[in-house]
Amino acid sequence: MKAEIIAVGTELLMGQIANTNAQYLSRELAAIGIGVYYHTTVGDNPGRLKEAIAIARERADVIVFTGGLGPTQDDLTKDVIADVLGLRLVTHQPSLDKIEELFRSRGVAMVESNARQAALIEGGTPLPNDTGLAVGELLEAGGCCFVILPGPPKEMKPMFDRYAKPLLLAKLPGEPLHSRMLKFAGIGESSLEHRLIDLISAQRDPTIAPYASEGEVTIRLTTRAATPELAASKLDPVEAEIRSRLGEHLYANREAAIEEIVAELLKTRGETVAAAESCTGGLFASLLTDVPGSSAVFAGGVVCYTNAVKREMLGVPGRLLEGDGAPGAVSRETAASLAAGVRERLGSDWGVSVTGVAGPAEVEGKPVGLVYVGIAGPDGGGPEVWELKLSGNRETIKLRAAKSMLYRLWRRLTPSDAR
Amino acid sequence: MKAEIIAVGTELLMGQIANTNAQYLSRELAAIGIGVYYHTTVGDNPGRLKEAIAIARERADVIVFTGGLGPTQDDLTKDVIADVLGLRLVTHQPSLDKIEELFRSRGVAMVESNARQAALIEGGTPLPNDTGLAVGELLEAGGCCFVILPGPPKEMKPMFDRYAKPLLLAKLPGEPLHSRMLKFAGIGESSLEHRLIDLISAQRDPTIAPYASEGEVTIRLTTRAATPELAASKLDPVEAEIRSRLGEHLYANREAAIEEIVAELLKTRGETVAAAESCTGGLFASLLTDVPGSSAVFAGGVVCYTNAVKREMLGVPGRLLEGDGAPGAVSRETAASLAAGVRERLGSDWGVSVTGVAGPAEVEGKPVGLVYVGIAGPDGGGPEVWELKLSGNRETIKLRAAKSMLYRLWRRLTPSDAR
Repeated sequence: MKAEIIAVGTELLMGQIANTNAQYLSRELAAIGIGVYYHTTVGDNPGRLKEAIAIARERADVIVFTGGLGPTQDDLTKDVIADVLGLRLVTHQPSLDKIEELFRSRGVAMVESNARQAALIEGGTPLPNDTGLAVGELLEAGGCCFVILPGPPKEMKPMFDRYAKPLLLAKLPGEPLHSRMLKFAGIGESSLEHRLIDLISAQRDPTIAPYASEGEVTIRLTTRAATPELAASKLDPVEAEIRSRLGEHLYANREAAIEEIVAELLKTRGETVAAAESCTGGLFASLLTDVPGSSAVFAGGVVCYTNAVKREMLGVPGRLLEGDGAPGAVSRETAASLAAGVRERLGSDWGVSVTGVAGPAEVEGKPVGLVYVGIAGPDGGGPEVWELKLSGNRETIKLRAAKSMLYRLWRRLTPSDAR
Repeated sequence: MKAEIIAVGTELLMGQIANTNAQYLSRELAAIGIGVYYHTTVGDNPGRLKEAIAIARERADVIVFTGGLGPTQDDLTKDVIADVLGLRLVTHQPSLDKIEELFRSRGVAMVESNARQAALIEGGTPLPNDTGLAVGELLEAGGCCFVILPGPPKEMKPMFDRYAKPLLLAKLPGEPLHSRMLKFAGIGESSLEHRLIDLISAQRDPTIAPYASEGEVTIRLTTRAATPELAASKLDPVEAEIRSRLGEHLYANREAAIEEIVAELLKTRGETVAAAESCTGGLFASLLTDVPGSSAVFAGGVVCYTNAVKREMLGVPGRLLEGDGAPGAVSRETAASLAAGVRERLGSDWGVSVTGVAGPAEVEGKPVGLVYVGIAGPDGGGPEVWELKLSGNRETIKLRAAKSMLYRLWRRLTPSDAR
């Protein structure tokens, strides 16, 4: 079953808002096995909307409309669809009653145009609007299924989820779809694909879909099955195979950022972490403190941009930082000293550090993208340090360096036999 | 001139990302007087992309493509456009040199597919990619103008702004458009609009368009004029009128984040700032260090999530934090002590502090969203403190609190007669 999403609204074409409805609906439709082949956005213009509908009818079995159900003269989605199909608009009495009741309760006179929000194209199934006034509709006509939803996301999402989705599911042949997200860190999209290329090429059921966003890579496994248990029996072996190859990068098998998983691991272990950040400028701390409840595991951090702060707040010996033959602020030695220093000064179980060159200019003759990450832990021995060569602009290098700190800490917090 | 935006990428149709490129481009094209009539999104599928191009050529004078310029086999935007137009792909040597140089500098072997990013359709004008590898293109062919841009916003935006927009402007009839961005902090979109409603309602030339994103509000003034000087003579009086009403919020009259302006002001004054952050968790430091060259003005920061760190690293007296009748960590007194403490300990000219409740749960019986911002300066007198009541989820409260710190610091750094 092929779907197209048509968003109606001049505000989208003016760039006043982003079409997040298309993203939401695409994800929801994909999750129940309906492939979306096109998104179209068109303004509040009857002629151009008609043309868009004509094109969509040629190439889609389901057309999902969002927007243009409001009370103003610009809101004409239902009128145009009715016109295209040669059908009449009728009044949906329960919706009209609700609108009238609302105006009565507010003591405001209802204007005629508000009644437009209770209109239905004859022959369709009304989709109740639990969070607004305009009624939606699912209509089968002319060989196509028309799903008509309001534009505001807070009305559109519950209407789709509660009323449209069950009706669409009932129309679908076969068993429902089940998905599982596998989340990876410390590896780029291309090397991940390279190491799974045989699985990805041979995929049939479950399907294996990799995708990347800044700083992380995700794989979605999807299969059809009658029950979640039967789905798991098909998904588990694929996950196990991927884990056997990439276990040291696979930090979660559900939608979660690595900072959430690190916070959970620390909480379970009853441990805390502190951070000494030079080139990331506080980004590691900011990511970790985006996690609700992180105050239980994050002791705090020092953003040590200057050598003076590295020395005085974190006890890095001056001989490491400056002078003849000193390794310098951007070095393995300084990263180690920062990790140990922040752990000691803040009294945490773990100390994580980073020092490097975020750009745009080189520092101490060291190139942009050279970064050292250090970890000092409660398990004895000196701090561990990793050298990274990151690419990208200043913000990207900061993000990649902060995600590397999280990745290295995750590795240390995870017993190797659990991976 | 009618435009259509075609976004290419299966990840958009799967709902993995929102099509924010269409929003950005719509706004930018509208600002130079090019009306966008349709957005279309299509997957990485040559047949369907061809059909989308055929439809767009019927109804648009300019087609702006985003996405599908990468190195993988899925990236086929240029191939398909070349095929539709019956043109050949050629290699853009400067782009190929740049790609080869990058791989050489990393010591990695370049795979053949990476050369695809240097391809151009013959006859077009290359659009340099200052933040990535894939070269873009502007091509006039078959009665239509094709603008081909990469998908990642951090590559697409600078390419459009620096290279595509000037070429499009040169094609437009009439006098060129001139825009000026007015940037505001410390005020919400609705109260800003309220205070300018008479100007916005009566606007003709220049046009006055407000829009908001998280943590800041922008107004764009636009006019047509033969020269920048003539444009300025029309824009200056409107800016002056707005400044007379909202000068204490208007931090820049060009596209700039408040952290950039704060960094510039500090640099000019030869001063430094240090930050003590509790509820923002390092976000202030991270924003400020996103600015290239911020190392000259940012001494460093302490993320003082726990009372122990507030006491030991920043010298906040224990009696403020805990015990009978203590004001607590989230208080005016603690904010003042943190600002003074971080200024002293890090030896900076300015100390900025924040303590508050980012949520989801209340702290010390204090509600989510209660935040105190403190500033200690070189100009004598005790630290100044402001109480804020912020709304939103945890991340939004963090961002609004960090932007408030920047706003308050900006006010202190700006002589009142300069506003």
